[in-house]
Amino acid sequence: MTRGCCIWLTGLSGAGKSTIAQVLAAHLIDAGRTVTLLDGDVVRTHLSRGLGFSKADRDANILRIAFVAAEIVRHGGIVVVAAVSPYEAARNQARDMIGHDGLVLVHVATPLAVCEQRDVKGLYARARRGEITGFTGVDDPYEPPASPDLALTTLDCDAVECARRIECVLEGRGFISRS
Amino acid sequence: MTRGCCIWLTGLSGAGKSTIAQVLAAHLIDAGRTVTLLDGDVVRTHLSRGLGFSKADRDANILRIAFVAAEIVRHGGIVVVAAVSPYEAARNQARDMIGHDGLVLVHVATPLAVCEQRDVKGLYARARRGEITGFTGVDDPYEPPASPDLALTTLDCDAVECARRIECVLEGRGFISRS
Repeated sequence: MTRGCCIWLTGLSGAGKSTIAQVLAAHLIDAGRTVTLLDGDVVRTHLSRGLGFSKADRDANILRIAFVAAEIVRHGGIVVVAAVSPYEAARNQARDMIGHDGLVLVHVATPLAVCEQRDVKGLYARARRGEITGFTGVDDPYEPPASPDLALTTLDCDAVECARRIECVLEGRGFISRS
Repeated sequence: MTRGCCIWLTGLSGAGKSTIAQVLAAHLIDAGRTVTLLDGDVVRTHLSRGLGFSKADRDANILRIAFVAAEIVRHGGIVVVAAVSPYEAARNQARDMIGHDGLVLVHVATPLAVCEQRDVKGLYARARRGEITGFTGVDDPYEPPASPDLALTTLDCDAVECARRIECVLEGRGFISRS
């Protein structure tokens, strides 16, 4: 059985997590691996339907993702998570569930101003107008991870380059072989 | 990668699903396999916390279990599900998600009268007194699977023997090797 691992992308809405996750997953699949992509927005349509954006609901969402990720890692699979996951405590709980050895925590550290300027989904504008409350970075905190395995600013590189940097970490940790 | 599979135990509350699932999982782990046990009652404490027992909520619960099971099977793992899963349509949807080749559907077909007489958790008594509504077998239907891979009455054999019969099916389908 190959060693399983979870690449967990955390960062603000619009930071580029989903795009990087998709590129990374595609690369790993091309390399012959089986990959599960757990995208926060997608997960909310099935695994976490009914959960909102209160702290308790956000935590429940993260722990559900972590539960699924932990099982996949235990079975030797690769799982890529793309979720805002704004709270350090919940991320640490996820790390405990998945196992320190199996987790690669990546901070997609695009600055708030850049995320807000992009505003691909128009959510920042709605949050600033008060139409959405509890929006991370506007009226809900984002706690940057204290010790990520990798931090990507995304300003100096595109999604393909970001994915490549993650793959270097995966190679270094022995989760994938050098191509 | 070994071939993944999902052993899905369906049946009334008190039919013996959880006990059989635990014995089966222990046997498979002893044989060196990695196993995820998704017990309906346990799943409701994390994956499906907040869901009730309406038809819509029961269906959502089954589809969540099926989502997780399908991913584990895709990664070559073994997952044992023990869930009342009373509706044929939801079970068929689960089968479609997991894949026909990867699913072993087991009807734990202990008769209602026997389950009710055992009433380990006292739930039938409460349902008969009207303290619980929508209880499968009392005021909510159980639709027996039209074409299970195995049906166990549990009257003629204990949990160990039931697990053994399931293992025979798993051997026959090539999911585990003959011990």
